[in-house]
Amino acid sequence: MGEETRQRIIEAGAELVHRQGFNNTGLKDILKASGVPKGSFYFYFANKEAFGIELIEHYGAGFRALVQPIMQNPGLSPLARLRAVFDIAHAAFAAQGYARGCPIGNLAQEMGDLSEPFRTSLGEALDRMTGFFAALLAQAREAGEVPADLDAEEAAVFLVSAWHGAIIRMKITKDGAPLRTFMTQTFDRLLHP
Amino acid sequence: MGEETRQRIIEAGAELVHRQGFNNTGLKDILKASGVPKGSFYFYFANKEAFGIELIEHYGAGFRALVQPIMQNPGLSPLARLRAVFDIAHAAFAAQGYARGCPIGNLAQEMGDLSEPFRTSLGEALDRMTGFFAALLAQAREAGEVPADLDAEEAAVFLVSAWHGAIIRMKITKDGAPLRTFMTQTFDRLLHP
Repeated sequence: MGEETRQRIIEAGAELVHRQGFNNTGLKDILKASGVPKGSFYFYFANKEAFGIELIEHYGAGFRALVQPIMQNPGLSPLARLRAVFDIAHAAFAAQGYARGCPIGNLAQEMGDLSEPFRTSLGEALDRMTGFFAALLAQAREAGEVPADLDAEEAAVFLVSAWHGAIIRMKITKDGAPLRTFMTQTFDRLLHP
Repeated sequence: MGEETRQRIIEAGAELVHRQGFNNTGLKDILKASGVPKGSFYFYFANKEAFGIELIEHYGAGFRALVQPIMQNPGLSPLARLRAVFDIAHAAFAAQGYARGCPIGNLAQEMGDLSEPFRTSLGEALDRMTGFFAALLAQAREAGEVPADLDAEEAAVFLVSAWHGAIIRMKITKDGAPLRTFMTQTFDRLLHP
């Protein structure tokens, strides 16, 4: 029962913050969307900042759930998996009108300078995301699908950045063009063996 | 006199919004920082949104002023200019502790979904920025400094995205590592002839 309420607050807050930003989302909005009184909120979370930190883990879990079918598909090569991860994320953005963007990238931009606890947690989330891509790139290198001298770690940092930037531009163009450019430049140029 | 006051409001607001975001900056903060009464603000700007739109042009002018010495240096090749633009931006970020980031990229992330006038103006600013890089890349291609089959427009879109994403990560790592990775992957891989 308690865990259910807590989860309901997180899900309602995650939706609002993803849509309109953290500072732009009032506690009042979160309470209204989750249908809990203020006292309940403070039973589960020390303050709005602590709540925001928990959203980072929630968003990370969402990303892992999204890519799990790809990672468990034995028919895909490492490079095909990498491509499929971006394709499925693209499809998810298309389904919401190319709005919102990456919730982790958004918070990094918004909160990186404003809150040390946010900065620490977002750094961990970005490192995990980068590690995920670095592992795929190292496997693709083993399989001879990308240049043999590719630095998987460095390339992963670059890909995560380029993807986050492409998503920012997608929020402006409101179409998939920046994401398609990301795919072409990444797969036909950067990672081309 | 009037133009001076207007400029003072823009400069004070540009500083605040760059540091802490648009929605997170109240009109009250802008009035306090610029030392003008509320009536003065509304004499020059219809509302806070209209004021924010003007900041975009102000930030664009700041970028042009930053890169002007590079573009007017006849001793630099097109590719050397491209590199110098990123180097000078890196130095500017380093000087402010790797905080704040690109004011245009920040607003695109924050306001792209929330305001149609912001979205339109930010789209124009991103297109101008991309055009600037596309022209440099086309010149570098003429000079044989980048691959002969490089699509300068597409590569420019990708570079602007990758740079914006690298800056987001810089706000988290609070060091130059993501920017250095951008440079290595861009100049040693992507643009390597």
